[in-house]
Amino acid sequence: MKNRKFVNPVFPHFVHGADYNPEQWVKTKNIWDDDIRLMKEAGCNEMTLGIFSWSVIEPSEGVFDFSFLDEIIERIYSSGGRVVLSTPSGARPRWLSEKYPEVLRVSRWGQRYHFGERHNHCFTSPAYREKVKIINAKLAERYSHHPAVIAWHVSNEYGGECYCPLCTEAFRNYLRNKFENDIEKLNDAYWTTFWSHRYSDFSQIEPPSELSDMGIHGLNLDWRRFVTEQTIDFMREEIAPLKKANPSIPVTTNMMYDFDGLDYFKFRDYIDFAAWDCYPKWHSGDNAETAENAAFWHDFYRSLKMKPFFMMESTPSQVNWHEYNKLKRPGMDTLSSLQAIAHGSDSVQYFQWRKSRGSSEKFHGAVVGHDGTNDTRVFRSVRKTGEILSLIDEITGSMVESEAAIIMDWENRWALSDSQGFARYDKKYTETLYSFHKFFWSHGINCDIVHPEDDLSKYKLVVAPMMYLINQVSADNLKKYVREGGILISTYQLGMVDENDLCYLGRTPGCGLDELFGIWREETDTLYPDQKGRVKFGGQEYSVIDIAEVIHSSHADVLAEFSADYYSSFPALTSNRYGKGKALYIAFRDNGDFINDLMSVIISDAKIKKNIPSDGSLPYGITAHTRTDGENIYLFVANYGEKNTVILPLGKPYYDIIGGKTISDVLLKPFDFFILKTER
Amino acid sequence: MKNRKFVNPVFPHFVHGADYNPEQWVKTKNIWDDDIRLMKEAGCNEMTLGIFSWSVIEPSEGVFDFSFLDEIIERIYSSGGRVVLSTPSGARPRWLSEKYPEVLRVSRWGQRYHFGERHNHCFTSPAYREKVKIINAKLAERYSHHPAVIAWHVSNEYGGECYCPLCTEAFRNYLRNKFENDIEKLNDAYWTTFWSHRYSDFSQIEPPSELSDMGIHGLNLDWRRFVTEQTIDFMREEIAPLKKANPSIPVTTNMMYDFDGLDYFKFRDYIDFAAWDCYPKWHSGDNAETAENAAFWHDFYRSLKMKPFFMMESTPSQVNWHEYNKLKRPGMDTLSSLQAIAHGSDSVQYFQWRKSRGSSEKFHGAVVGHDGTNDTRVFRSVRKTGEILSLIDEITGSMVESEAAIIMDWENRWALSDSQGFARYDKKYTETLYSFHKFFWSHGINCDIVHPEDDLSKYKLVVAPMMYLINQVSADNLKKYVREGGILISTYQLGMVDENDLCYLGRTPGCGLDELFGIWREETDTLYPDQKGRVKFGGQEYSVIDIAEVIHSSHADVLAEFSADYYSSFPALTSNRYGKGKALYIAFRDNGDFINDLMSVIISDAKIKKNIPSDGSLPYGITAHTRTDGENIYLFVANYGEKNTVILPLGKPYYDIIGGKTISDVLLKPFDFFILKTER
Amino acid sequence: MKNRKFVNPVFPHFVHGADYNPEQWVKTKNIWDDDIRLMKEAGCNEMTLGIFSWSVIEPSEGVFDFSFLDEIIERIYSSGGRVVLSTPSGARPRWLSEKYPEVLRVSRWGQRYHFGERHNHCFTSPAYREKVKIINAKLAERYSHHPAVIAWHVSNEYGGECYCPLCTEAFRNYLRNKFENDIEKLNDAYWTTFWSHRYSDFSQIEPPSELSDMGIHGLNLDWRRFVTEQTIDFMREEIAPLKKANPSIPVTTNMMYDFDGLDYFKFRDYIDFAAWDCYPKWHSGDNAETAENAAFWHDFYRSLKMKPFFMMESTPSQVNWHEYNKLKRPGMDTLSSLQAIAHGSDSVQYFQWRKSRGSSEKFHGAVVGHDGTNDTRVFRSVRKTGEILSLIDEITGSMVESEAAIIMDWENRWALSDSQGFARYDKKYTETLYSFHKFFWSHGINCDIVHPEDDLSKYKLVVAPMMYLINQVSADNLKKYVREGGILISTYQLGMVDENDLCYLGRTPGCGLDELFGIWREETDTLYPDQKGRVKFGGQEYSVIDIAEVIHSSHADVLAEFSADYYSSFPALTSNRYGKGKALYIAFRDNGDFINDLMSVIISDAKIKKNIPSDGSLPYGITAHTRTDGENIYLFVANYGEKNTVILPLGKPYYDIIGGKTISDVLLKPFDFFILKTER
Repeated sequence: MKNRKFVNPVFPHFVHGADYNPEQWVKTKNIWDDDIRLMKEAGCNEMTLGIFSWSVIEPSEGVFDFSFLDEIIERIYSSGGRVVLSTPSGARPRWLSEKYPEVLRVSRWGQRYHFGERHNHCFTSPAYREKVKIINAKLAERYSHHPAVIAWHVSNEYGGECYCPLCTEAFRNYLRNKFENDIEKLNDAYWTTFWSHRYSDFSQIEPPSELSDMGIHGLNLDWRRFVTEQTIDFMREEIAPLKKANPSIPVTTNMMYDFDGLDYFKFRDYIDFAAWDCYPKWHSGDNAETAENAAFWHDFYRSLKMKPFFMMESTPSQVNWHEYNKLKRPGMDTLSSLQAIAHGSDSVQYFQWRKSRGSSEKFHGAVVGHDGTNDTRVFRSVRKTGEILSLIDEITGSMVESEAAIIMDWENRWALSDSQGFARYDKKYTETLYSFHKFFWSHGINCDIVHPEDDLSKYKLVVAPMMYLINQVSADNLKKYVREGGILISTYQLGMVDENDLCYLGRTPGCGLDELFGIWREETDTLYPDQKGRVKFGGQEYSVIDIAEVIHSSHADVLAEFSADYYSSFPALTSNRYGKGKALYIAFRDNGDFINDLMSVIISDAKIKKNIPSDGSLPYGITAHTRTDGENIYLFVANYGEKNTVILPLGKPYYDIIGGKTISDVLLKPFDFFILKTER
Repeated sequence: MKNRKFVNPVFPHFVHGADYNPEQWVKTKNIWDDDIRLMKEAGCNEMTLGIFSWSVIEPSEGVFDFSFLDEIIERIYSSGGRVVLSTPSGARPRWLSEKYPEVLRVSRWGQRYHFGERHNHCFTSPAYREKVKIINAKLAERYSHHPAVIAWHVSNEYGGECYCPLCTEAFRNYLRNKFENDIEKLNDAYWTTFWSHRYSDFSQIEPPSELSDMGIHGLNLDWRRFVTEQTIDFMREEIAPLKKANPSIPVTTNMMYDFDGLDYFKFRDYIDFAAWDCYPKWHSGDNAETAENAAFWHDFYRSLKMKPFFMMESTPSQVNWHEYNKLKRPGMDTLSSLQAIAHGSDSVQYFQWRKSRGSSEKFHGAVVGHDGTNDTRVFRSVRKTGEILSLIDEITGSMVESEAAIIMDWENRWALSDSQGFARYDKKYTETLYSFHKFFWSHGINCDIVHPEDDLSKYKLVVAPMMYLINQVSADNLKKYVREGGILISTYQLGMVDENDLCYLGRTPGCGLDELFGIWREETDTLYPDQKGRVKFGGQEYSVIDIAEVIHSSHADVLAEFSADYYSSFPALTSNRYGKGKALYIAFRDNGDFINDLMSVIISDAKIKKNIPSDGSLPYGITAHTRTDGENIYLFVANYGEKNTVILPLGKPYYDIIGGKTISDVLLKPFDFFILKTER
Repeated sequence: MKNRKFVNPVFPHFVHGADYNPEQWVKTKNIWDDDIRLMKEAGCNEMTLGIFSWSVIEPSEGVFDFSFLDEIIERIYSSGGRVVLSTPSGARPRWLSEKYPEVLRVSRWGQRYHFGERHNHCFTSPAYREKVKIINAKLAERYSHHPAVIAWHVSNEYGGECYCPLCTEAFRNYLRNKFENDIEKLNDAYWTTFWSHRYSDFSQIEPPSELSDMGIHGLNLDWRRFVTEQTIDFMREEIAPLKKANPSIPVTTNMMYDFDGLDYFKFRDYIDFAAWDCYPKWHSGDNAETAENAAFWHDFYRSLKMKPFFMMESTPSQVNWHEYNKLKRPGMDTLSSLQAIAHGSDSVQYFQWRKSRGSSEKFHGAVVGHDGTNDTRVFRSVRKTGEILSLIDEITGSMVESEAAIIMDWENRWALSDSQGFARYDKKYTETLYSFHKFFWSHGINCDIVHPEDDLSKYKLVVAPMMYLINQVSADNLKKYVREGGILISTYQLGMVDENDLCYLGRTPGCGLDELFGIWREETDTLYPDQKGRVKFGGQEYSVIDIAEVIHSSHADVLAEFSADYYSSFPALTSNRYGKGKALYIAFRDNGDFINDLMSVIISDAKIKKNIPSDGSLPYGITAHTRTDGENIYLFVANYGEKNTVILPLGKPYYDIIGGKTISDVLLKPFDFFILKTER
């Protein structure tokens, strides 16, 4: 039976489009004519409108002029295109901050910003919320029943913090609520008796900053939680008028790669589908590393809603904000677009359709350049991507099935990064996640990125690295998963603090995880960057870098031991049977060799399916990912290597959708890819 | 016929002098006695007075006391010296900022500074302008007819910005004026519709800063133009009372090496002669590089007024503000002083005559040290320079004639540096200028540094690197130059934006420069610092670094091609006949080898005269520059190498002015120099 | 006759204890039970209480609750322990800054901080002083006659500055007093006529900062002096009520390693004994360097009062605030504790007894970890240290006798570091002190660290490196010392400025030191980090780094000469007989080889006693230090090397106190130590 989930069933196709800001060219409408013609030629079926339009559609307070939007939506639609419509809150008009200065953010140093840049509105300001509600309602009423409109894109790249009196008071209320108006509960949770930091009233609370305090870790953590909650609260107010006008239009917001500032997991209950802006640094170094890193975040954003997502922004050539803005090499644009599809995206979208003539992003890559023609390598590449997407349209809505998952958690990320101790300024949490993800990526194994409280029962293998902060619910979730037969791998720094950043007392890992893993931790050593330790595993020696724990096995099997330093012969890797499953603990960081060798054993043990049969990893730079509609399996094979050509046996015959024939092996030159099909 | 231009015809001699701050020693007049004696002994014929004297000559508001100036001017003059008199605006007295806080600058973060340091007055403040006008008028009335006074030095090292309300309003007025009170013109020029940044009134404008906006490039550019204009406006008010009292005393202000903050070209209409402060980092690395760099700026400051200039400050030993303050090696002080003369200076001046006893510059090199004697290597070196200057006095006022020029433009420098994209934080504009200048410098070829709108007809060869921002006037100027027979070399990044930092639409380089060069640019690639490309030219391969453009020849000859990467076989160097001339375009940056080999062909083609006949460049570190009074040619030959000794044939006999005999070759040990003479 | 000085004669034993903050656990008194039991087990006889207790003992203004202190002091005492009691001023309660905002510091940028962190009270604030006086008096009245209390520890790690109006006014008064209300005296001292910086009234003075002025070096220096004076003034007000209640309880404050901000020499007149917090970076690189560095500061803090001191804080395992927080290897904790004893400490104290559960220091090493047990390597190590201390209890109160001393001076350190010129951002003053100290340390020679005005007559050898700022009293002190037979070594940069940072005029070194050393300095050269000079001494060549002076011998013997660069054959080392002694001058910095070879000659010449006979230095990492009670000599031999094992002959038989037998040589594995005894 087919299992396809469309972002919007009225448009069950891959979206191929771009951010489009035609209000820049309203005085030169011949450029609009060119645009409409070129969109068709490029195989683009969608444009995202309205992101920066506020100052045009509401030029002064309460004065609205939708003429440009009316016209451009009509022209796009009548030439066969669709529209994703944005709410304009990401860049407010100047009159708003002039009349209501409270909408301007206040810095952590207490300074009210002037108007300028983007993203700098106070999320708490009632005036801003009111004005956004009005403009969103106007837009929704006017366009949400227009057949061109297939989705809402609220605001733009939410982010940042504000330290104004309104936000400060909102933060106090957040804490009053959390601690049930009992300041003593807060004192206990923040351990304020140390350093004589006790609060006697919630009104004494200031957001953490260099002006006040950065050393109360519980406060720091709650501030970050509050920032996420306040942002979401703002987003919910943005969405309400949209849903009121037409609840059937799906809503999303565009998230940013590996952005640390907001707990994106918290957003998933409020958006209908996920969308993100994808800007890897292709050709900057090891291209396979770059591809793996992008793949990690594709996997994350897909896992967020466990269904197809949008790659809402990408560049067809180069960005303008990296330190060095290198051009994508021929082939890389299409390859990286299809990477999104392979990992579950139902869109390939660019920022932006046409390069701006002026202002800060005028040199950011775009489909159409300042020359305004189709006679460029970049335009031809986008057109090619469009052609391929139309050839594989049947894949739209199909799903990714994974037997393995990696646990990621923003609260843990924040707490770890904030912790004083260990390698103080670089805990390498995401890097450690990547190092496990890279194993799956390079072995042709699908992988989800999940939250510690998610249902894990569908996975054969779950990896939970560096779960420094863990609460009882998550710990119980891990235990349940293993008890019922799962294989769980965790690492050093597991279970050190609770949800308030208070250390677990007694033997750690806390929350009963010592029982799950059958070990206890005595102390944690930090290595200087020029120091290396050693571990022996399976007759081989591995290097230890950065961190090593002195642990004791209480009832686990010791599979590897340290072989240097004073903790030589102490456990470095343990495995503990628990219920029907198994929990492994890695007590040190390695450069990847150990993870590779260990995981190879584990996946064979767990009978994890590789998308293409292989001994060990696929050749360098080669990947194999699948989507399925329940009846067919779609296999995406690609070569991210910049130099190596590979002949890869597929293990069985597949139908090559683009080539139009059945094949059993593929020849992959650099940046080559195949989209193959077989019955499930 | 003789052609000599004197800074002040009443004193037609080389000026050999120093900044002198005798008000520091007013309680120990025996030091004045020593100074007067030592000046004579050192061959110093000039002292620059009054730079930091304000608090002494106007100790409280409206109370004036010129006694110390009266006395010291008299003493200097009566012992045979002359005086350059400074206006004291560079360091105001404390009472002024106490009574009129508006004279204090406001930082880009909105904070009003306290009194302190130098250079920190608001250029807009009416109070400051008024007080400066009064003190300048007093000085001019009292001293501008004194026979000792040969020039005015207004203020000291103008620089810096102020964000106070007065400056903000002045900036708004500047823009009102520029955009003819039409905010829509400003919106168009700044492309504010992007990011919804539209202004509805000039009163909404804030100077660009971290508190407001750094992303409106047109605004950033106009702010820098405004800062230059406001500084010049201030300077003009300073000059007015001086000229009123005695219009025959020439006026200058001391500029700073490669200072980025002010468009020095704009100053040339308001000063009578150019002057600058010259502090190269001798002996810090490759000494020839250091010498070339200093030579570039000597050439610039000479070209500013196309006549002799002053080297207003230099150190006879070391400075105190470099990261490492190394002593000049024996010989280097005289050599670097004569470098200024060789490039057209009519002065050798030091900062300062005598080391201060306290405060921030007490360890800056000076002619007389804290020991107060003549018994130092430094004093002897200054004395030697004085002797040489008196021997070559006939050279005073003679001119430098160049057949080649390099175009430099501050507005382009600002816009390039501000541009987001490419190598984001380091565009290397001045470094690229130096790389071309180095060719001339190392081949014994005189070279001017000119503005893009200057008359170019006198040059056989003009090099215009990285002209990213170019206006129609400049573009037409380049075309006219080539049409009439000139050879023009330009490079990557030519003609990308107009004077408002708006991208040229259609094929670029814009402004019709695609026609001049016969090429068009498709895209621009940025290389990471560890990446190298390749180019083939004349049977040889060259490395490509930093930047490479994918260009197409429309009607130019392709002289070199890329030989690596996807743009292999695309043009890397083109040449286009245009009118009677030729326009060459270099599409990549190299480490200097390519420039060297290409320029060698070009100068032979253009029949550019070398000051000494040579195959290829002069030996390492050796230079040959000329001045002429119309009848004689004065040839300056020098060795900046720290180790190499060279015997250099001169190609014909010259009269060695210092040695007093005719010679045909010279033996140059490290830091040796010769000043030679022949008939024109 | 025995000569022992006890910190407090009522407790004539080594103190083995820790900072203890039991108010954190007041809701879980079972932890108190554990603590009391574990203290005994660990051999801890002391706890430091009250450091962060203010918010508990005075929960709101004027409301006092000493119940927790009453109970815990009683419990510690009744189980055999003693208490050092802290005043709580280092971390004030929140109500205090709410009611009296003046107690909060103002930053150098003029911003009033909010409540937060520690150490951030205004030292001038009358309100803060008043509140501290009250709480200190309460504590003193209640506890200073309790038999448990053996010492006072006032505040905690004094440090930092405040730029509030109260401090600004106090600074002005400090200057009014210093300059006898005569602003002209200040102008002369600060050399304000340069840059027109003259003051006309003391009310114009602002503390130096980026908002005002950083270039008036005399002002900078007086500001630092004022900060020390104001801090001490605050400390004196803290101490007064303590002494009033019971003058027999000795008072100290804990100082911080190499802290630059306060002139610790100035504290010695107001404390009864010295105490410091010792946190070397063991195992981070060359462990012997680390040990030498710690030894330097042990020597300094002992020399401060010339009697036993306390090592008030140390970690038994790791800290949490280094960039990489490495664990002490087995043995290092005890070894580094005994290092303190060897250098004259009468205590081994830890921060802290038990790890906090939350807040910023929760991962700082402690005797008891979050597990709460005795079953850790760290606990066992502390217990072992306790056992050893009890075995060597007879050493308590014994003294260190040194024949050599190194001069250190905070005022010189400040002025040097502030000076513009030379290597502008890194003068390497303390590093240079260490390079001389290392010689003594590695040769088994005791060494004091003294102030330039201290009586030097007891030393055979005094080293006074880089005495850039020196006043007449110090200069006369040095001359007296040499005249009466001492050997003095000084270096480059001696005697450049006076106590106001004004350069000495005439020949330098100033203050008559040119006569003492028989040399004069012409100029000072700075080498770039990649440049090296050369010196010839005793037939051998040495490298010159960083700095070299061109000096002339007027009447000194030249013992070494430069052998490269233009100052080749100029003196590099001179020696001058003066009175009965000798003054040597080193004109360059070396990497240590030269110091080693020179000093070897000098100590043999001066007949300096080594604690163990040796040719040249002791083997790598081996040290030998002594204490004496007047009758016995206690020899501490240790191995700080991480790898080398050494058999070391002692030169004569010693009684091994721990081993309980007489021996003549020792086998030292890494981190081994011996405590030996012989008659004097």
